[in-house]
Amino acid sequence: MRLSRYFLPVLKETPREAQIVSHRYMLQAGMIKQASAGIYSWLPLGFKVLRKIENIVHEEQQRVGHLPMLMPTIQSGDLWKQSGRHNSYGPEMLRFQDRHGREMLYGPTNEEMITEIVAAYVNSYRELPLTLYHIQWKFRDEVRPRFGVMRGREFLMKDGYNFDLSKEAALHAYNRHLVSYLRTYERMGLQAIPMRADSGPIGGDYTHEFLVLAETGESEVFYDSEITDLTFGDRDVDVDDYSACQAVMDEFTSRYARTDETHDETLFNEVPESRRRSARGIEVGQIFYFGTEYSEKLGAVVQDETGQKIPLHMGSHGIGVSRLLGAIIEASHDDKGIIWPQGVTPFHCGIVNLKQGDEAADGACESLYSALTALGLEPLYDDRDERAGAKFGTMDMIGLPWRITVGPRGLKNGVVEVTSRRTGESEELPPEEAVAKIAKIYEGKL
Amino acid sequence: MRLSRYFLPVLKETPREAQIVSHRYMLQAGMIKQASAGIYSWLPLGFKVLRKIENIVHEEQQRVGHLPMLMPTIQSGDLWKQSGRHNSYGPEMLRFQDRHGREMLYGPTNEEMITEIVAAYVNSYRELPLTLYHIQWKFRDEVRPRFGVMRGREFLMKDGYNFDLSKEAALHAYNRHLVSYLRTYERMGLQAIPMRADSGPIGGDYTHEFLVLAETGESEVFYDSEITDLTFGDRDVDVDDYSACQAVMDEFTSRYARTDETHDETLFNEVPESRRRSARGIEVGQIFYFGTEYSEKLGAVVQDETGQKIPLHMGSHGIGVSRLLGAIIEASHDDKGIIWPQGVTPFHCGIVNLKQGDEAADGACESLYSALTALGLEPLYDDRDERAGAKFGTMDMIGLPWRITVGPRGLKNGVVEVTSRRTGESEELPPEEAVAKIAKIYEGKL
Repeated sequence: MRLSRYFLPVLKETPREAQIVSHRYMLQAGMIKQASAGIYSWLPLGFKVLRKIENIVHEEQQRVGHLPMLMPTIQSGDLWKQSGRHNSYGPEMLRFQDRHGREMLYGPTNEEMITEIVAAYVNSYRELPLTLYHIQWKFRDEVRPRFGVMRGREFLMKDGYNFDLSKEAALHAYNRHLVSYLRTYERMGLQAIPMRADSGPIGGDYTHEFLVLAETGESEVFYDSEITDLTFGDRDVDVDDYSACQAVMDEFTSRYARTDETHDETLFNEVPESRRRSARGIEVGQIFYFGTEYSEKLGAVVQDETGQKIPLHMGSHGIGVSRLLGAIIEASHDDKGIIWPQGVTPFHCGIVNLKQGDEAADGACESLYSALTALGLEPLYDDRDERAGAKFGTMDMIGLPWRITVGPRGLKNGVVEVTSRRTGESEELPPEEAVAKIAKIYEGKL
Repeated sequence: MRLSRYFLPVLKETPREAQIVSHRYMLQAGMIKQASAGIYSWLPLGFKVLRKIENIVHEEQQRVGHLPMLMPTIQSGDLWKQSGRHNSYGPEMLRFQDRHGREMLYGPTNEEMITEIVAAYVNSYRELPLTLYHIQWKFRDEVRPRFGVMRGREFLMKDGYNFDLSKEAALHAYNRHLVSYLRTYERMGLQAIPMRADSGPIGGDYTHEFLVLAETGESEVFYDSEITDLTFGDRDVDVDDYSACQAVMDEFTSRYARTDETHDETLFNEVPESRRRSARGIEVGQIFYFGTEYSEKLGAVVQDETGQKIPLHMGSHGIGVSRLLGAIIEASHDDKGIIWPQGVTPFHCGIVNLKQGDEAADGACESLYSALTALGLEPLYDDRDERAGAKFGTMDMIGLPWRITVGPRGLKNGVVEVTSRRTGESEELPPEEAVAKIAKIYEGKL
């Protein structure tokens, strides 16, 4: 993309309404614009990152066999009366009437709707196990929306639902979700720690939240420092193997790690003092197993092998897709702006032309642009007639991991400069080698 | 995908509520399920096609330089008061109050919101031309939603907005949209004819609708039969070239083609009688140029080269993404089910194992599955323990363009059968050649 043809309204002033750094930088970098309280438009740069995150979530869900679908945003109130949640769900649920006076609502979650779908079509144990998910906009009418996309009212979420024949099978689905979530977050450059959590209005005994440590996190968390040494990495876990998934669950949840809601001081004190940590965390996902409550109320029953009708064991599992942008920025930035992890960066590298209009510089930038594009990479070429300082400021703020700087002086020596956004280190290389280096980095070979 | 692990609830009975074939087949093929009147859940097969169509729209928009972004579904009523449409828009607009009593609405379109965004950030002629678009769910509270996704209440739409310095530049953007739309629809296997249309509540003098001819279309259309001989094909139009785009516009709109709303009997009678046609059509898109109305009301003004402040010339351009599934099925089906055009098919081919459990048949199917997958193709393998008739019935209903049938008898002769869904013609080929044939078809070489 050439910046002269892009829509990237980088702000010079610091937005006053932003209390935390991710909110401030998303506004300054021209990623989002507030439409109403807690409701945002995603400008091209923000949308590009949102879509990358969404795609990682899709890929990792499908890798473990979960099936993508899409439920609507608007639901019937009647459905929620069947589950009993129409009254119990608080004023965060946006309720209204359609033109015929029917009670409707903007879905904050989809347990009722997905259970009704499975109840309608699944009749036999042979059609199980089944995990369906969707990535859809939700609405929660927060009293005081704040922190930008971190606590917005309209937000994008992946919510998935498993349907199983037994508690044992449903707990395997629970473990399988943990396995896929660990990989999902790591691909985004995040360490998200599973912590025992409170089940809230969804209900159920088994639930873990995934928290990213960050000073601005809304939850206080307590954990054994050994947990931060764990990485999932590139393991090839057989997700149909109950014990393989259980082993991952055990490895990642056997050490103490809880949010303030479930914190137990006595248990925490059993952790050696040198390893006890308290910090703040941002919730980026949650998994639940809640048994047969919804399937009984909404009639999701199947015949088992003996012909008996039994209600399905269910769980629901969420990833806060739009909120992840905020969490990633909270975890990865400096005082100049965002530093995108390579897995989610909107463009693979920036190209800064120090002297727009100079024949050699323009030509070298065009060649770099073509060469990178031909390799399937997406560069953002700052081809504006602007001072070098303004161009560097934009690149630093929007946080592309790599920048290639092109100027007449370097070109006379046959080199351009490749700079890491994270370390600030630069290296002079011939243009072809600069391209080869960027390509290798994204192939994971550097 | 293996059917034993998929969620494909193909219905045996004909759904009584469906009045048109696309609605009936989408229900029968397990693509959608009604959630409330005019509101649908997209089951995995339906979602897969929806996503393919969405991706084609994204690719073709970006090919001509339009920038993707995403505006929220919920809008503030205040914004619509500024444009004057809060009162004038009918009861199809879903209005409600949030918990603080603020007037909100579920966006049926986004002229106000996008104009406010551009007004906030764009100040100079140097930042133009600019065309922003998004693909987002809309809500129109139809009195009598019907015809499935063809006239639903919650529907997915691409809506794009151009901002230009002059009427001439904005009419070029109008023409550029026509160019990109022609290519978009053809990639989906559709012939969509641009017809002079009525501008309705959006306003403006210049507008064309794109209509797909189908017996079940909601509009009566009148056209010169020569128009159906036109194809856009694989032309490489320079979309920055005003006259190149104007030439395409002239070619595709100079012959008589109007909907009943704008039909002019006198003009129509000037078409030679043998070429006069009347038929029914499904609207799948519309383009508008409407000048400076919104930019004046919402303050989208820039400084031109002389320092003068001038309001921007705008247009808006829509493609009915979810409705396109219905339109494609209306245009491409037979009495056994859907026939997907190759550009939008959910799976590239089906594999039917005539004797599940037979060692040779199972092995051959697995090899075909691996070979196709290794080539980047997505087969759907019917590995269920079902009769051949049921498997054929499912494949015919869901409409994959190609089927490979594998049975012990054929395998003894070293062959499998490759069948075209559209023609019904079959060919016996060794498995490797069957794979090569399917691959060549999707490379566009057969």
